[in-house]
Amino acid sequence: MAKGITPKEENYSQWYNDIVLKADLAENSAVRGSMVIKPYGYAIWEKMQSVLDGMFKETGHENAYFPLFIPKSFFSKEASHVEGFAKECAVVTHYRLKKDEKTGKIVVDEEAKLEEELIVRPTSETIIWDAYKNWIQSYRDLPLLINQWANVVRWEMRTRLFLRTAEFLWQEGHTAHETKAEAIKEAELILGVYADFAEKWMSMPVLQGVKSTNERFAGAIETYCIEALMQDGKALQAGTSHFLGQNFAKAFDVQFLSRENQLEYVWATSWGVSTRLIGALIMSHSDNNGLVLPPKLAPIQVVIVPIYRSEEQLAAISEKVEGIVKELKAKGVSVKFDNRDTRKPGFKFSEWELKGVPVRLAIGPRDLENGTVEVARRDTMEKENLQIADISEKIVHLLEKIQDNIYRKASTFRDDNTFYVDSWEVFKQKIKEGGFVYAHWDGTSETELKIKDETKATVRLIPIDGKKEEGKCIYSGNPSYRRVVFAKAY
Amino acid sequence: MAKGITPKEENYSQWYNDIVLKADLAENSAVRGSMVIKPYGYAIWEKMQSVLDGMFKETGHENAYFPLFIPKSFFSKEASHVEGFAKECAVVTHYRLKKDEKTGKIVVDEEAKLEEELIVRPTSETIIWDAYKNWIQSYRDLPLLINQWANVVRWEMRTRLFLRTAEFLWQEGHTAHETKAEAIKEAELILGVYADFAEKWMSMPVLQGVKSTNERFAGAIETYCIEALMQDGKALQAGTSHFLGQNFAKAFDVQFLSRENQLEYVWATSWGVSTRLIGALIMSHSDNNGLVLPPKLAPIQVVIVPIYRSEEQLAAISEKVEGIVKELKAKGVSVKFDNRDTRKPGFKFSEWELKGVPVRLAIGPRDLENGTVEVARRDTMEKENLQIADISEKIVHLLEKIQDNIYRKASTFRDDNTFYVDSWEVFKQKIKEGGFVYAHWDGTSETELKIKDETKATVRLIPIDGKKEEGKCIYSGNPSYRRVVFAKAY
Repeated sequence: MAKGITPKEENYSQWYNDIVLKADLAENSAVRGSMVIKPYGYAIWEKMQSVLDGMFKETGHENAYFPLFIPKSFFSKEASHVEGFAKECAVVTHYRLKKDEKTGKIVVDEEAKLEEELIVRPTSETIIWDAYKNWIQSYRDLPLLINQWANVVRWEMRTRLFLRTAEFLWQEGHTAHETKAEAIKEAELILGVYADFAEKWMSMPVLQGVKSTNERFAGAIETYCIEALMQDGKALQAGTSHFLGQNFAKAFDVQFLSRENQLEYVWATSWGVSTRLIGALIMSHSDNNGLVLPPKLAPIQVVIVPIYRSEEQLAAISEKVEGIVKELKAKGVSVKFDNRDTRKPGFKFSEWELKGVPVRLAIGPRDLENGTVEVARRDTMEKENLQIADISEKIVHLLEKIQDNIYRKASTFRDDNTFYVDSWEVFKQKIKEGGFVYAHWDGTSETELKIKDETKATVRLIPIDGKKEEGKCIYSGNPSYRRVVFAKAY
Repeated sequence: MAKGITPKEENYSQWYNDIVLKADLAENSAVRGSMVIKPYGYAIWEKMQSVLDGMFKETGHENAYFPLFIPKSFFSKEASHVEGFAKECAVVTHYRLKKDEKTGKIVVDEEAKLEEELIVRPTSETIIWDAYKNWIQSYRDLPLLINQWANVVRWEMRTRLFLRTAEFLWQEGHTAHETKAEAIKEAELILGVYADFAEKWMSMPVLQGVKSTNERFAGAIETYCIEALMQDGKALQAGTSHFLGQNFAKAFDVQFLSRENQLEYVWATSWGVSTRLIGALIMSHSDNNGLVLPPKLAPIQVVIVPIYRSEEQLAAISEKVEGIVKELKAKGVSVKFDNRDTRKPGFKFSEWELKGVPVRLAIGPRDLENGTVEVARRDTMEKENLQIADISEKIVHLLEKIQDNIYRKASTFRDDNTFYVDSWEVFKQKIKEGGFVYAHWDGTSETELKIKDETKATVRLIPIDGKKEEGKCIYSGNPSYRRVVFAKAY
């Protein structure tokens, strides 16, 4: 067990915080609720960004950038949106500071008060649709497929590194379409992109579905989502894609001349994933030795530690390592040779385990004689000695194996913690223990809220591919035609 | 001349705005002073980011992310910094809105007033050095070489798209070092990176030097800069790199245990370039037909326009074009086949000229017969007919030629507008006409400010490689030992 990491069985929440801090991913800042993302954590985010950005562009989207500040009045234009977002937010009221004549301190200059307050964006639908009004005149201007990488601020009262912070980084897509069908298709396309990213890159299995009315995005007609199961049995919403109908087009009066020469309101979607995904990554794979990263998102995929007693030994090892590094880089593997002479091998082993580097190579003088290298996998902690001769090929293969293995492990965990339940007593018990619970629900917000009150569980999603099945609501006993997924959630 | 673009000879400032708007780079938003960067403009920024990010990583830097908000008190910690930055800034005073009971309108909730106001970062030295305090204990933790890509806000009264906006995008490097010499070396290294980027990627020649006291960054000991000459004879500061001495380390009490086991204050640098570079790019190369982009930063390097009258002709052309596109892409050239059937070739030609695409190919039925294609260069507007057979190789070569040519053109312009002046009358005349004026200066702020009052010119920089030369100050007649560069500036 790594030094300073609380065992997850003892206190999962503390284990999570320990991992974030000890693996040097992020830390709290002097500003309440705002985190500092440290280089190692940011490197993971950069990998995520780069892959997602490629997927968005591959599906025809372009990036743009819209203002950080949103005039207060914009929020009031879409009725349910203001309910959801204008409440807990950072408000800019002044644009100047000055030196107080008496105290000599820096104070807000009351003369520099804004006529209309500005909100630091919690999400950008309003400011973006205000711009789209001028960009869209005819069906020829559609579809408009735009994404933005940005910081947003939501004044959360209880914050946790990556999972819920006042400021966070994300991407937000905002698209405009001619028809309802096309907009729904877009929202579903992006859901697929998110699910692919979660499963193939993060090795994190996800369920796909739509949200209940209670959990829907403020301003959406339908919210599609992917949900993953964390190791403590709680669900985590990993990405959402919203079909917004014509709500924002009507709020900002965005009409277009259709192919039939009619003025019509534009159909919209919006969708986003955030730095929260790093929290999901941690809670999907990591263990009591620290972080476990899927190779495809690991900033360093292979670390090489030399074992030596003399300068001559280090020189001989370094020469051998140089060749290995070159070969690995040529195969697109990111590799670090940790030749710090201020640290012992044992220290380095723990450090790279803590940081979740998927593969560690160790080479000592005896290995040089035998032409071997010790290869350690982070996911299983297994070691074996391999011939150096074709090492790079084997490593590439091993990285793929690790990527698959941690996906399989997470899938097995999820399957083992997925329950089909028909009795209220069993429901309460399963929710308490943790996991995804498939149960019948009468579809009313009233029942959902009562279940939440009694168990803390919410409807995580209504499965997209859910089979029709006659049944009775787990709570009210009223008729139900399909099962939905309940869980406690982050 | 392109439709809707004011000739630059008539009104340079209007010409600039027309280019930004008509080439679809950016536009003003509903928020005073904040711009929307449109997809085509953002694509240029993405290219810039990608190249610069690679250069920073190549020189050992890592990315991280620090909070958007800075507690007001942080600014007061470094005396000259607060003078420079705390004045015109966006101040967050509240964290909640509510519905007014009487009017039903959304208003600021006065009960949700922050104990200490938060400033939206105008630059991040203070919040970053507050974090560094915990990151640095020993010389082993140094150097710390960190960069951040972020948005910043400075409440500018007069804004212009890209050149001066309330919110802008930039990168800011913040490094910490053991010794003064090492920090100075870092500041100079980055100056070199910026100059390389400007000249080799933007095709924009720059002067390198240091700022006078008046023009120095608030909190810096020395500000290094690159300065470029715009087509209207005004200078533009394109990037700065600051040697901060121990100012921020002292303000935030960041000490480290040195190799000699002594507690010492850390030495610092900071450096940045911003979306302003897009403004510089426009004003370095563009003409009355629109944008002219250096091929290395052009989102689309080659556009192909089919000339046809019938569906059959288009089909035959498309087949040929497909091969060309494939070949070009294989060579790393970004290419667009503009097969829109809603627009005529002439319209497309103007549009891509306006957007600065470096090379345009046009192919019609006769070309198919002859195995030729018409190749038009954006920089010289020259056209020639070339054989399709080895077209991709020729295009790659042509793109390099264009990159060089626009650099040479900008260099010639700068040389033609660089003057060595020893008389006050000539000085005033040359400054009025525009250009870089090398003149003697007595080195005092007093003289610099008087010159600024009378001519609007400032010392743009003191050349790094400036030769010693005895002379008399152009204004005061006091002794001077080298020439400095004066100009009016953006």
